[in-house]
Amino acid sequence: TLDMKFPSIPDKTPFTPLVVMELAEDTNEEAVTWLTSRIKDTQQSGGAELMIDRLTLDDNQDPKKENQNIFIVGASRERLLVGAEDVGLVKEFNDGSMRGFTYANRENFKGFQGDGDNFLSMAECQFIVKHELDTLRARGETHVPGYPKIRLYPGKSVVRRIQSKGILVQIFPLHDKEELKRLSSMWYQNVQLSFQPLDDIRHYFGESLALYFGFLEYFTLAMVPMALIGMPYYLFDWEDYDKYVLFAVFNLVWSTVFLETWKRFSASLAYSWGTLSRKKAFEEPRPGFHGVLGINPVTGRQEPVYSSTKRQLRIYLVSVPFVLLCLYLSLCVMMVYFSAEGLVLGLHDEEPTFWTSLLLYVPSIIYAVVIEIMNRIYRYAAEFLTDWENHRLESSYQNHLTLKVLVFNFLNCFASLFYIAFMMQDMQLLRQSLATLLITSQILNQFVEAFLPFWLQKRRNKRVHRRSGKVSPDQELPFDQQVMLEADMSTYLGTFDDYLELFLLFGYVSLFSCVYPLAALLAVLNNVTEVYSDALKMCRVFKRPFSEPGADIGVWQLAFESMSVIAVVTNCALIGMSPQMKSYFPDSETQLILVVATVEHVFLAFKFILAFVIPDVPRHIQIKLARVEFESMEALKKKVMYTVLRHFSRSGEKVNCWFSRPCMVLIKEGGTLGEGGQEHLSVEISLLA
Amino acid sequence: TLDMKFPSIPDKTPFTPLVVMELAEDTNEEAVTWLTSRIKDTQQSGGAELMIDRLTLDDNQDPKKENQNIFIVGASRERLLVGAEDVGLVKEFNDGSMRGFTYANRENFKGFQGDGDNFLSMAECQFIVKHELDTLRARGETHVPGYPKIRLYPGKSVVRRIQSKGILVQIFPLHDKEELKRLSSMWYQNVQLSFQPLDDIRHYFGESLALYFGFLEYFTLAMVPMALIGMPYYLFDWEDYDKYVLFAVFNLVWSTVFLETWKRFSASLAYSWGTLSRKKAFEEPRPGFHGVLGINPVTGRQEPVYSSTKRQLRIYLVSVPFVLLCLYLSLCVMMVYFSAEGLVLGLHDEEPTFWTSLLLYVPSIIYAVVIEIMNRIYRYAAEFLTDWENHRLESSYQNHLTLKVLVFNFLNCFASLFYIAFMMQDMQLLRQSLATLLITSQILNQFVEAFLPFWLQKRRNKRVHRRSGKVSPDQELPFDQQVMLEADMSTYLGTFDDYLELFLLFGYVSLFSCVYPLAALLAVLNNVTEVYSDALKMCRVFKRPFSEPGADIGVWQLAFESMSVIAVVTNCALIGMSPQMKSYFPDSETQLILVVATVEHVFLAFKFILAFVIPDVPRHIQIKLARVEFESMEALKKKVMYTVLRHFSRSGEKVNCWFSRPCMVLIKEGGTLGEGGQEHLSVEISLLA
Repeated sequence: TLDMKFPSIPDKTPFTPLVVMELAEDTNEEAVTWLTSRIKDTQQSGGAELMIDRLTLDDNQDPKKENQNIFIVGASRERLLVGAEDVGLVKEFNDGSMRGFTYANRENFKGFQGDGDNFLSMAECQFIVKHELDTLRARGETHVPGYPKIRLYPGKSVVRRIQSKGILVQIFPLHDKEELKRLSSMWYQNVQLSFQPLDDIRHYFGESLALYFGFLEYFTLAMVPMALIGMPYYLFDWEDYDKYVLFAVFNLVWSTVFLETWKRFSASLAYSWGTLSRKKAFEEPRPGFHGVLGINPVTGRQEPVYSSTKRQLRIYLVSVPFVLLCLYLSLCVMMVYFSAEGLVLGLHDEEPTFWTSLLLYVPSIIYAVVIEIMNRIYRYAAEFLTDWENHRLESSYQNHLTLKVLVFNFLNCFASLFYIAFMMQDMQLLRQSLATLLITSQILNQFVEAFLPFWLQKRRNKRVHRRSGKVSPDQELPFDQQVMLEADMSTYLGTFDDYLELFLLFGYVSLFSCVYPLAALLAVLNNVTEVYSDALKMCRVFKRPFSEPGADIGVWQLAFESMSVIAVVTNCALIGMSPQMKSYFPDSETQLILVVATVEHVFLAFKFILAFVIPDVPRHIQIKLARVEFESMEALKKKVMYTVLRHFSRSGEKVNCWFSRPCMVLIKEGGTLGEGGQEHLSVEISLLA
Repeated sequence: TLDMKFPSIPDKTPFTPLVVMELAEDTNEEAVTWLTSRIKDTQQSGGAELMIDRLTLDDNQDPKKENQNIFIVGASRERLLVGAEDVGLVKEFNDGSMRGFTYANRENFKGFQGDGDNFLSMAECQFIVKHELDTLRARGETHVPGYPKIRLYPGKSVVRRIQSKGILVQIFPLHDKEELKRLSSMWYQNVQLSFQPLDDIRHYFGESLALYFGFLEYFTLAMVPMALIGMPYYLFDWEDYDKYVLFAVFNLVWSTVFLETWKRFSASLAYSWGTLSRKKAFEEPRPGFHGVLGINPVTGRQEPVYSSTKRQLRIYLVSVPFVLLCLYLSLCVMMVYFSAEGLVLGLHDEEPTFWTSLLLYVPSIIYAVVIEIMNRIYRYAAEFLTDWENHRLESSYQNHLTLKVLVFNFLNCFASLFYIAFMMQDMQLLRQSLATLLITSQILNQFVEAFLPFWLQKRRNKRVHRRSGKVSPDQELPFDQQVMLEADMSTYLGTFDDYLELFLLFGYVSLFSCVYPLAALLAVLNNVTEVYSDALKMCRVFKRPFSEPGADIGVWQLAFESMSVIAVVTNCALIGMSPQMKSYFPDSETQLILVVATVEHVFLAFKFILAFVIPDVPRHIQIKLARVEFESMEALKKKVMYTVLRHFSRSGEKVNCWFSRPCMVLIKEGGTLGEGGQEHLSVEISLLA
């Protein structure tokens, strides 16, 4: 069998290793045999037609200590190309357009040379292998061999089943050391003023992650003008509210324009990566989903089903009250913080000593820690609850989880600021708290999230190297130890936390922009370091994640847009409360409020109109998409002829056939059709009336 | 040739007449010959393969007076069924699901019996004929024969070209007298308490119009609770603002819920009519579109193109300023009205006589007339401007026209009410103006729009009957005279004006609901008569319109939703201004305004959340749609086998074939496949590695 070669992967196994499957150490051998044979089986007999091999561990390792059930999965080149069609990969065609890849038509795609050796990237190959494993379906088996209690349902995914039952511990794609080295050097190792290599990131990590880094970069660049405009406010100590108003107005317009243009930019990226026009695959139930045996109304197959009414009840009677309770608790904690702050301030004012001045910091520190702890605990609770809601699809699970976490994080992080701004109306304190929160959260985040794990991982690497006798960490490890090392790395849990961080940052910058113009500058600085720390953690700390096709940033677009709507409201309110504004309307506060409310409504209307007027997809891409659509419609019309040409190829033959309409075909000239051979035979087709 | 028979169409022509084409009286005979031959030509040679015949006029008519170039178009049954596939008709399948009709699979659709005689409704047949005529494309011709100046472009629609050049005067489908009689009796002739026969309306007039009547009915029913709640306010003369607040709150929640549930209801309707899952056809340029010869970037064909930058310039430099100017003018006229009103009131107060009391009414009457005139003039201007913007597609033209007309009509109709409410703050006057506007506009509209044309048409009918010697208008006219009669009827210009009327009505009801709860009752009364007058005008006054497939009410959903957002703002403001509210906050007006603003924001947020939470398509329909999608995906996977089975049917034959992947087929048993015949032959398919 021929297989795709990725030069930097050592070739110890009989095929190029792509994906690692780790089964539980105590897995029944019968189940292992069954699983590997199912994976190796031809597609005709319902297998995945992949290659799989047990990882043989080196001698100098203690066999008792290491899990012996680690398997390496790969596939032949042909199988991967066929799989590329299965997963609906969209690639650039020879004429420059993006089209769904088909195996039959493979030679007409750009970059397909010879046997198609380098046509698919390693990330794509791993994605294909993952997809083929996921769609390996139970046939006659009623249960996993050796585990009579683990039932299988015909037509349902085998791998997802054994994963949710704990037989499959983990499945992950292998890193490509050489490629990774190249990527790291371009991306973060040399500090330089340049854009991120988005195409390379996508090539290695997939579209979803590349879109995150694209958004991070776009967001940073978009804030540079804000940062520049905000600087003089700090330098010259402008305390003039007129100028703040100007800044806020600019900020509001800018955030709307930025979010709209990002949509267009991401559509361009997604188009060039082939995910914009990619059709969504039919979603399988998520591994944790359970229910009683019933008939799936969509597929008509027997499988576990769970009543949607029950789920609604769980959501509205348990989850929603729980979230509301948590929000209430968070507000209570905030009130405790403010009263503690007041108490301490009172103590200090009464009898100021060194100890009381130190005491002044205690409430804020405790509150910051409590917020962080509450966020974490709530996160677990939210995950538990969403899991318990028993969503059938991963997308629905993610949406519910995101909503829960977003609402709570928003309140938890911003409630105190809102309180200071609108209840205490203390702009000085607001600015101070904003700065403290912004700076501490940045430093804390990047330390906890990237540098600490990086350091831990580095120590672990060193240990492995030492154990295998290699002293320098730059020396290459033997393949089996490299696999074991990667299997021990932490798993990257998706872009959720990274987006959440940006979302909160966006909140700090936009919600109170008119009292603290310096926030944009801090955010830019944060984002620049964020790029480096995120890049570091992706390349060095985590297992390689499976690439995930994505055409946009999904629910986060909505989240950012909602935040910018809230920002309009808060900024207008802050401006209305400013003493300068009040001095314009010395007689009547009422009139001031009415003016502010009117301006706010005009702003909101303007935002919606702007979002409506700016098309989400740039015109030149719309045209390209329309062209492909037009051509496929034309092709549909010509299908009668085309399908005929594919089959009857002997000259002079007369055939009656029945396609979308009755027709008669006379082949005038032509020979047997080869694989990529002639398609333009001379034929006569007549419709039979 | 066999053709579909509609029993009530007299069979004078050799085929069932479906559509009438009227060419200009002085059309060059060469062009007529060319056109009819192109229409009759087989599809293979690029024709439309329809039947066409010149209408022969009866003796007792003066041949000089009547246009001799009237043609009757029809089609064979088979042609219509093939055409049904071309236009993408979705029909109910035998298993209860809705599927795209295909000719090959026709026998598996519900209601297909024998030769499929009654499978398609007459409206569908007419729609198909219209589509086939529209897609009759120029081939080699460079110009219309006999008209060297009228150029033709290969691949572009012939009929649209001659229509925009005035050779084709009109094209319309024929009424079906008997069917129409049946429909009328069910629909409006017997005053009864029942729902409208939406399915029958759709059957006769198509989906778009049926959706309009569906919306009208839904809107009416939705307002009944409002009307009931509003009545006691009138009966008991409740002047208590607390109660008005209650009413307004109910109104706001209700209008949101109503618009959301309508979306679900219309999705159900569209699903059962097969338009929900229907794929949009590739849009042809609209007849009036012109440009210089260039390459269409989508199709790659040579055709007139018009730069989108030029169009944008026309829109933003001419149309937008013009619209703004018109809005300003409308405001000026309003101010003149109010000063005239003030003047007259002053006169009357100074020296009240009978004449001055009469004079009091003069400004309002003049203003009402001026508003109506301005609306009409503006409408012409908007049509002219949108035409001049030279939009390529009908949909884009319609969107721009709708937006222009909506904005102006909104301001023109509601500006005076806003002025009274928020500038003059005279609730008594507001209520009075609202009532006057509501009642007069209703009476005027229904008179001008339905009863006057109905009476005129009735007179015309009588004249035709008298001329043809039939005294009673119930007697049937000879076919040719019936055609001439219909050709003379006015053309129904689409649902735009009908929706606009409802939109304004919705504005009257919702914008100021908290000061005039009786508006809902008046609106219900209006809508009940509107159903009758609209039904009357569709059945008796206008030419039959071509049926238009539609899955929702399109841009009007957005318009109604925007109105309900504006209604939240106005109602909150009105409530805030009420004396009762002010009495709750006797000390500080500021606080009152803040509370009102907060409530308003909560309401708006609530609306958006509600719109987000309620799914647009009911769950049971989502499941049905997903099932069809799932099955088509499964079918795609099985396509290799299926296509093979369709072609090779001799037992024992071995064939190498190449589909999406290389495979070899051995047919074990089986005979020739019939049309709807066996599909489950025993075969062996092996993939070639």
